[in-house]
Amino acid sequence: MNNFKVVSAKLAAELDKELMGPKVGYTLQQLMELAGLSVAQAVQHSFPPTATNSNKHILVLAGPGNNGGDGLVCARHLKLFGYNPVVYYPKRNGRVEFYSQLVHQLEFVHVPLLDDSDWLTYLQPDRTLCIVDALFGFSFKPPLREPFTTIMAEVARVQQNLPVVSVDVPSGWDVDQGPPLEETPASPVLNPKVLVSLTVPKPCSSLLKPNTIHYIGGRFVPRDFANKYGFEPFDYQGGDQVLRLQ
Amino acid sequence: MNNFKVVSAKLAAELDKELMGPKVGYTLQQLMELAGLSVAQAVQHSFPPTATNSNKHILVLAGPGNNGGDGLVCARHLKLFGYNPVVYYPKRNGRVEFYSQLVHQLEFVHVPLLDDSDWLTYLQPDRTLCIVDALFGFSFKPPLREPFTTIMAEVARVQQNLPVVSVDVPSGWDVDQGPPLEETPASPVLNPKVLVSLTVPKPCSSLLKPNTIHYIGGRFVPRDFANKYGFEPFDYQGGDQVLRLQ
Repeated sequence: MNNFKVVSAKLAAELDKELMGPKVGYTLQQLMELAGLSVAQAVQHSFPPTATNSNKHILVLAGPGNNGGDGLVCARHLKLFGYNPVVYYPKRNGRVEFYSQLVHQLEFVHVPLLDDSDWLTYLQPDRTLCIVDALFGFSFKPPLREPFTTIMAEVARVQQNLPVVSVDVPSGWDVDQGPPLEETPASPVLNPKVLVSLTVPKPCSSLLKPNTIHYIGGRFVPRDFANKYGFEPFDYQGGDQVLRLQ
Repeated sequence: MNNFKVVSAKLAAELDKELMGPKVGYTLQQLMELAGLSVAQAVQHSFPPTATNSNKHILVLAGPGNNGGDGLVCARHLKLFGYNPVVYYPKRNGRVEFYSQLVHQLEFVHVPLLDDSDWLTYLQPDRTLCIVDALFGFSFKPPLREPFTTIMAEVARVQQNLPVVSVDVPSGWDVDQGPPLEETPASPVLNPKVLVSLTVPKPCSSLLKPNTIHYIGGRFVPRDFANKYGFEPFDYQGGDQVLRLQ
């Protein structure tokens, strides 16, 4: 059980909207940069480079929305940290120019973008250190659609041996209710080894399996704003962008 | 003397332009966020919070251009780190909406914006921990103009007792040639205690006084890009956004 406050899907959407509203004035680009950086730092803390893992890859799965954008930023920072990320981004956001720019930035730092068959070859523990699940975040509403049902089923199949790091919400989970009650071909169940909650944990985080490593990232709100949404600021250390909660 | 490569004002301008060009695709908002964060982390490393300094302020002086923008971002992060920054931003950039948003973000985290007389009251070592000089960066061309000549003269007057942290280039210095040859009322000479070079040090950094603490920040370019501009990537540790060079 958590001993910290959580914020529902509805409230998280309001919070996000207020952060990018005219009064606060954050831009999506700023928030995504900080969120992606904090996820990369959580990966770095969870899987520090060693002699045996330094040649392995990190498979970043980027979904069609903002959670996917966080994943694209995360992959860039991981590369700059010295890791070997590869990105599978099957449904690109064509409406927002910034998403194309995030892809250019990945090409700039030489992060490979995988095609629909290539990515499957990375689902092996001897080749890949971990999987970053940046498919869906706090605005996810079931049902899952293809190609994501298949992608998540593939990840669920290997997750016992290849740890999953979920960004904000384990993909496919109901933000407030937690994992699907029943695992079916149409609703594979991810059980991440690491969760990086952004700004504040969502209710489903209380249903993580024991021993899940839980980080908070996205260090951008002051105390009064946190309190207004019913939570307390987290005790980040120094200039860190990420804090381990459990 | 430095044992690392530097990049001239002209080349730094080309590098910056290429980073934000269509091929690389970084946006100003992203680069400024990362640059400002790395400056805040350098301040945090240089002046860690203690029992005696925790009530003091950090005076951030923001100039009219991008160096000033880095300062505004830095101030926000310092506040979120638990410091008490105050910002003096005398000539606001009215052409670019994003600069107004950076100001809104400061108001959001409760960083005071000082007026033309208030800021002078912070030039006291018992009140202020350090001054962040984000007035002018690598695109500065003399001569200095008011109100910056007066502002810098005030800072120069107290810098022996109130350490200055310069962002990228000590303000008023020629990026390639170093400090003004002669100190006059029209050209006060800043001698920072800390310099945070962004992306790569500029030639003037070789003329810093001995014992100046020198950091590199702005961790966003890969090896081949660095090499193309004549320098080697820096050996940042883990997920750090800043590295002490000397």
